[in-house]
Amino acid sequence: MARSFRGNPMIVTVTPNPAIDLTYQVAGIVPGGSHRVRPPLLRAGGKGINVARVLHGQGVPVRAVATAGGDTGTELAAGLGGIEHRLVPVGAATRRTIALVDQTDGETSIFNEFGASLLPAEWQALAAAVADELPGAAVLVGSGSLPEGAPADFYPGLVALARHAGIPAVVDASGGGLLSAASAGADLLKPNRAELLEATGERDLAAGARMLLRLGAHRVLVSNGAEGMLGFESGRPGQLSARLPQPLVGNPTGAGDAAVAGAASVLAAGELDLRVLLCRAAAWGSAAVLMPGAGEISPDWQELESDLIVEELS
Amino acid sequence: MARSFRGNPMIVTVTPNPAIDLTYQVAGIVPGGSHRVRPPLLRAGGKGINVARVLHGQGVPVRAVATAGGDTGTELAAGLGGIEHRLVPVGAATRRTIALVDQTDGETSIFNEFGASLLPAEWQALAAAVADELPGAAVLVGSGSLPEGAPADFYPGLVALARHAGIPAVVDASGGGLLSAASAGADLLKPNRAELLEATGERDLAAGARMLLRLGAHRVLVSNGAEGMLGFESGRPGQLSARLPQPLVGNPTGAGDAAVAGAASVLAAGELDLRVLLCRAAAWGSAAVLMPGAGEISPDWQELESDLIVEELS
Repeated sequence: MARSFRGNPMIVTVTPNPAIDLTYQVAGIVPGGSHRVRPPLLRAGGKGINVARVLHGQGVPVRAVATAGGDTGTELAAGLGGIEHRLVPVGAATRRTIALVDQTDGETSIFNEFGASLLPAEWQALAAAVADELPGAAVLVGSGSLPEGAPADFYPGLVALARHAGIPAVVDASGGGLLSAASAGADLLKPNRAELLEATGERDLAAGARMLLRLGAHRVLVSNGAEGMLGFESGRPGQLSARLPQPLVGNPTGAGDAAVAGAASVLAAGELDLRVLLCRAAAWGSAAVLMPGAGEISPDWQELESDLIVEELS
Repeated sequence: MARSFRGNPMIVTVTPNPAIDLTYQVAGIVPGGSHRVRPPLLRAGGKGINVARVLHGQGVPVRAVATAGGDTGTELAAGLGGIEHRLVPVGAATRRTIALVDQTDGETSIFNEFGASLLPAEWQALAAAVADELPGAAVLVGSGSLPEGAPADFYPGLVALARHAGIPAVVDASGGGLLSAASAGADLLKPNRAELLEATGERDLAAGARMLLRLGAHRVLVSNGAEGMLGFESGRPGQLSARLPQPLVGNPTGAGDAAVAGAASVLAAGELDLRVLLCRAAAWGSAAVLMPGAGEISPDWQELESDLIVEELS
């Protein structure tokens, strides 16, 4: 599976439930009040697109595959900035997310629209677009929630496409999507602590991760907030922990997507070692906390990576 | 100025700063929290479009003239429902308004984007479109805020176009727009109490209305919330008051636009009598309070009109 021979290790990200993100700065939010606001910052969003944005910002070749529909779908295309992309046209309008940043205290209130259902033919078109992008790709990343009525085998289908292309599949999903991706033999899963416990029904992080490995996943990285990140691998008895000497202060929004981007960039270079994956994911995730906006990581990520305290726990 | 001979007394409304209104129902708003929401109710908005919606709902021929730009401009066109319209294409994207209705207490928080500036050629195109719509029209209504950088003579220009066409001009504006429309000799102005006092600098409602008449307005209707509506007319010493026996409970959003629509429907029938104008405006405004959504009036408006207590005050 070594891919170091590839001249152009392109990462393909798939976002089954993208969104156009509208971020408003509000000078003091008064519940029940009327507020005058400047036009919002408009960005293409959804977890796979956010992963692509981080990779693009770091100069890693990446191509974002997503659906787009309606006038918000046109906005989505415009909001991708310079990210290479392939948008599969669908009938239903792309959903919005609305973020209201209260400038008086920095507190952000978020309103995420549910994604509209896709037609069966549209799910097929999305899968066909992914398959079409895989020749020449080094890694396939599938990220985020699924719209209502999604086929239960969507993430397993992505894992199968990656296996067919001979490249690793990374999945960042929650609930049934996480479990089904594990069962399909995903090369890397990256739930956060809450998602892991909710999906597996376990009370203990390590027990949850081990369940995903038993189901078929090869590696699991679990983000655990300020306590850092844990890595698990099938056939490896213990677990690896990576954390910074002291927790960072900043904006954790998008840190999980940055961690996935970090791990994907390592895989794209042909590296499968759990320690390397864990450290790069932890470093990029931490470097995202230092930046004000989601989708960016601090240029000091290498320093953060070298500061990591990595321990083998039994 | 009698217009009863017209077969088709079309009302033309002009909205210089339209918006696409997004209304979200939220199951309990938690400041700083993350919320899952259904896709919003999407409607074309801005005061002139809201006036047109009320008229259209009552079967009164109306045509809405507004600007539209960007993907939100496409949404605006789709959100007009069956309202006849003429949209002048502009470069800047149409603004949004976001309304978050907290389903737990019915409280609505509103976030209104400022409108983007228009280019001088776009202002000219808007005025030319209005001029082009006036032959055959019975009334011209100009409503709402102006985007930044609007020419100071925008509302006076509308009044001049109406005079040239031999039809009455109704203006519902605030601040400088209200004063300049008065100076231009608008046939009817309809500020609310707060707008009137703010624009004129007077502390007393009657003094403010008289200032607008002195500037050149022919009639002024002032909405005064639950206390009803007052009517003033140049050359008429006293004032007319119209109010319901008891205040209504309901949603006052859009009541002002419904009042303008009521007055415009009377003018379109060739009727200029202040008492008739005042009563229809008060009845439609009150009938809007009884309906859950803006842009609708209760079918019981005639009953409300007959319940009005009308007094001539000196």
